[in-house]
Amino acid sequence: MKERYDILLEKTKEIQVIGQIAMLLGWDTEVMMPKGGVIQRSEQQAFIAKLAHGKLTDSEIGKLLKEIQEHPDYDKLSDIEKRNIYLIQREYDRQTKLPSDFVAEYTRASVISTEKWKEARSNNDFETFKPHLKIMFEMTQKYANYLNPDLPSYDVLLDLYEPGMNREKYNEIFNPLKEATVELIQKCQGSEIKPDYSLMTREVPLEIQKELANDVMKLLSYDLERGRLDVAAHPFTTGDYDDVRITTRYNINDFTSSLFAVMHEGGHGCYDQNLDKELHYQPVGNYCSMGIHESQSRFYENILGRSKSFWWFYLDRFKKLTGDIFADIQYDDFIRAINKVEPSLIRVEADEVTYNLHIILRFELERDMFDGKVNLDNLPEIWVTKMKDMLGVDVENVSDGVLQDIHWSGGSFGYFPTYTLGNVYGAQFFAKLIQDIPDWDTRLEKGEVNVLTDWISENVQKRGNLYDPPELVKIVTGEYPSPKYLIEFLQEKYSYLYGLD
Amino acid sequence: MKERYDILLEKTKEIQVIGQIAMLLGWDTEVMMPKGGVIQRSEQQAFIAKLAHGKLTDSEIGKLLKEIQEHPDYDKLSDIEKRNIYLIQREYDRQTKLPSDFVAEYTRASVISTEKWKEARSNNDFETFKPHLKIMFEMTQKYANYLNPDLPSYDVLLDLYEPGMNREKYNEIFNPLKEATVELIQKCQGSEIKPDYSLMTREVPLEIQKELANDVMKLLSYDLERGRLDVAAHPFTTGDYDDVRITTRYNINDFTSSLFAVMHEGGHGCYDQNLDKELHYQPVGNYCSMGIHESQSRFYENILGRSKSFWWFYLDRFKKLTGDIFADIQYDDFIRAINKVEPSLIRVEADEVTYNLHIILRFELERDMFDGKVNLDNLPEIWVTKMKDMLGVDVENVSDGVLQDIHWSGGSFGYFPTYTLGNVYGAQFFAKLIQDIPDWDTRLEKGEVNVLTDWISENVQKRGNLYDPPELVKIVTGEYPSPKYLIEFLQEKYSYLYGLD
Repeated sequence: MKERYDILLEKTKEIQVIGQIAMLLGWDTEVMMPKGGVIQRSEQQAFIAKLAHGKLTDSEIGKLLKEIQEHPDYDKLSDIEKRNIYLIQREYDRQTKLPSDFVAEYTRASVISTEKWKEARSNNDFETFKPHLKIMFEMTQKYANYLNPDLPSYDVLLDLYEPGMNREKYNEIFNPLKEATVELIQKCQGSEIKPDYSLMTREVPLEIQKELANDVMKLLSYDLERGRLDVAAHPFTTGDYDDVRITTRYNINDFTSSLFAVMHEGGHGCYDQNLDKELHYQPVGNYCSMGIHESQSRFYENILGRSKSFWWFYLDRFKKLTGDIFADIQYDDFIRAINKVEPSLIRVEADEVTYNLHIILRFELERDMFDGKVNLDNLPEIWVTKMKDMLGVDVENVSDGVLQDIHWSGGSFGYFPTYTLGNVYGAQFFAKLIQDIPDWDTRLEKGEVNVLTDWISENVQKRGNLYDPPELVKIVTGEYPSPKYLIEFLQEKYSYLYGLD
Repeated sequence: MKERYDILLEKTKEIQVIGQIAMLLGWDTEVMMPKGGVIQRSEQQAFIAKLAHGKLTDSEIGKLLKEIQEHPDYDKLSDIEKRNIYLIQREYDRQTKLPSDFVAEYTRASVISTEKWKEARSNNDFETFKPHLKIMFEMTQKYANYLNPDLPSYDVLLDLYEPGMNREKYNEIFNPLKEATVELIQKCQGSEIKPDYSLMTREVPLEIQKELANDVMKLLSYDLERGRLDVAAHPFTTGDYDDVRITTRYNINDFTSSLFAVMHEGGHGCYDQNLDKELHYQPVGNYCSMGIHESQSRFYENILGRSKSFWWFYLDRFKKLTGDIFADIQYDDFIRAINKVEPSLIRVEADEVTYNLHIILRFELERDMFDGKVNLDNLPEIWVTKMKDMLGVDVENVSDGVLQDIHWSGGSFGYFPTYTLGNVYGAQFFAKLIQDIPDWDTRLEKGEVNVLTDWISENVQKRGNLYDPPELVKIVTGEYPSPKYLIEFLQEKYSYLYGLD
């Protein structure tokens, strides 16, 4: 049996190597490729995708899985080996349950739909996108049915993006979070303290911003011997293990755009770099889930990078690195500016507090769409109403409303909730960190950033995919995921920043 | 039969797509990859190499080739289709004649040997490398025997790197070239004109060198919408069609190092970009041979880029682009400096005239090694003697002698001669260009660089691999490859520069 297990893991490793190649092709496309290369590249990507699919659905894998699990010695496998088997089986089932004709059709439809979405968004015209949205919605329902016909489609999709999750569990987390957030926003808006964000828009030359980025990567222990930083229109992270690549974009008149992107992507990047070397190329040695991945980026960007303790030591260094540009700025004004709470239209530009409402809005919409309670024809209007209700803002263009995100055009229904779940996990991890290291703040104030990064690396990142997300959170914090810690974190932080009681 | 032909070409295209992926992996390794990624990358490359080998030796290809060529309608195929069949058959035969165990062993030995070569070169110690050189030499003989047991090994290798070539043909080209070159060098050295290369070592800031590179790429019609320029320790070109990537390296105290590297690699790059779009992904639509590829880089770098006509118009522009650094330099002094003839130890740093002797030396050595006339133990001493005889220089370290090139460590015996063959082809093409466009020089002096690049693109580059190199040269110039044109070109050019009669 051990021999079969080894063959199976060899096959799994090969699939991961193919995945690494696919990631390089994707990275190069966004960051390096001359634009004329696009057709050539799409053929390379299609080839690799087909190759990967063939390997993933190789019936030999199914056979090995069966033989191993039915073998009398199966119970002698270690927990890690069993978890590997479980993860390989899960992926194999997902891949083989989908008829390959359907996958091809789905991929084709999603490419067209994404093109139409781009067109619609740039023309501020929902009608162009609507028929394609409907097709993608119907096909995604079908997709979910192939995977599990016994569960409601949306539950299948939620579990697909975040193992262990469903509507019920999300409701339990999002409902209290929504209530608390709406209340907190009102309090912030009612406060006499009005953070001045314009301080952040002073011109910072590109070269200085790059130095800042380098300095921050070093502080976060993002390893440039095993990673890179490049420029991309929409920052992202790719790669794994010893070759991880993060990206940012520079705005001369808003250094925070790059600085916090570097922290965010740096969080993703550190996770990928810090996965347990002993478990590389094993399913258990990969990242756990989208939500856990996002918890790392949010932890580095928000919990660490926007904290008052971090800036207590870093502001002086920042002022030096940026020359005289910010010499006159006071600590209080600075940390209030980078944490300004302000309801706005666009999710990706939202602050730490209002962001979650953007996500909850999308979750509620998706949930209701799959429950048949929302007619897709009315999405733009419903969007306007919900934005007004939840965030108090007026949506005037569909481009800034229902058309702002790419996700639905590719059929990624059920993905959005993992973003806020990342915030939930992150705050819960942080609450445990505070228990473990009560003097974390005084140490961070002295510049010991690794007090936080070492803890999260050891407790979360190194554990890779040894557990499904809810279990991982339980093991790390002693409790299943709960919105309580994020709510408390935000209430405490913003009470201080906005002088609330 | 047409159906079988189409399937065959579909398979060939897939192999090329895999090749493109391999090229991207290689490019990224040299130019972008963080150094920690090396092990991970080698697994990706090994996977792709194995995949390519499997596809290349797919017995289905052999079956299709046989069915097509034995089909009664075979003669109805067009010349291009027949050439595709021929090229696919040639590659298939090469790939399948080598036992895969042997290929694996050969690859393994070459990796170790290359490591040992690096060590030996940096320690200036031939003994470290010697046993590995012997292994590679013996294995390469075996390699050649697998490919064709009926021909002398070195002839097989020469034909492998340059279809249509063998020892006899090289002798016919290299012997007169050697004689004429030795004579020309003596004359140049005896001249009262002593070019002052130190003019070229004035410091030119990196930013200016980059602008120069961009300007030159534009002049050569290297298309940056379908290509890139990056930095690499050893400049190279990779990619094809609509995604071609060239590299250079910058030396603050020698701008020519980058400038002529950009022209050289730009020549390679233009070739890859200008292959006939109608024939992309067909074997006939690829580059013809190593020698023809080199003829393009040498044409752009030397025949065009170091010509007095080019600098007649470009020197003023160059002076403007470089600020005041070269304001005082005279045209004559400049073109003499960039064309200075000076025997030296290192091939890759040699000038246009002495370069060919470096190659002929290697050719003669390889030829004699395979003929059993040279004992590998004595290579360092033979090297010293030959360098003294041919170039009049004293080799004091093996690192600057027999250990200077990487080629033999990887088993690439028979490759060197293609470099000088590139010069031979290039001069022969140029002689025809002069016939076709008698006013080429007055037009180039006005800045019409495309008079040369359009001609070479149309006559050589676009023809891809429609013919084997000797036939291609015959079709373009009306004559099979002959050393006459290179000899005349060099004699005329350097007689002018050195004021010889």
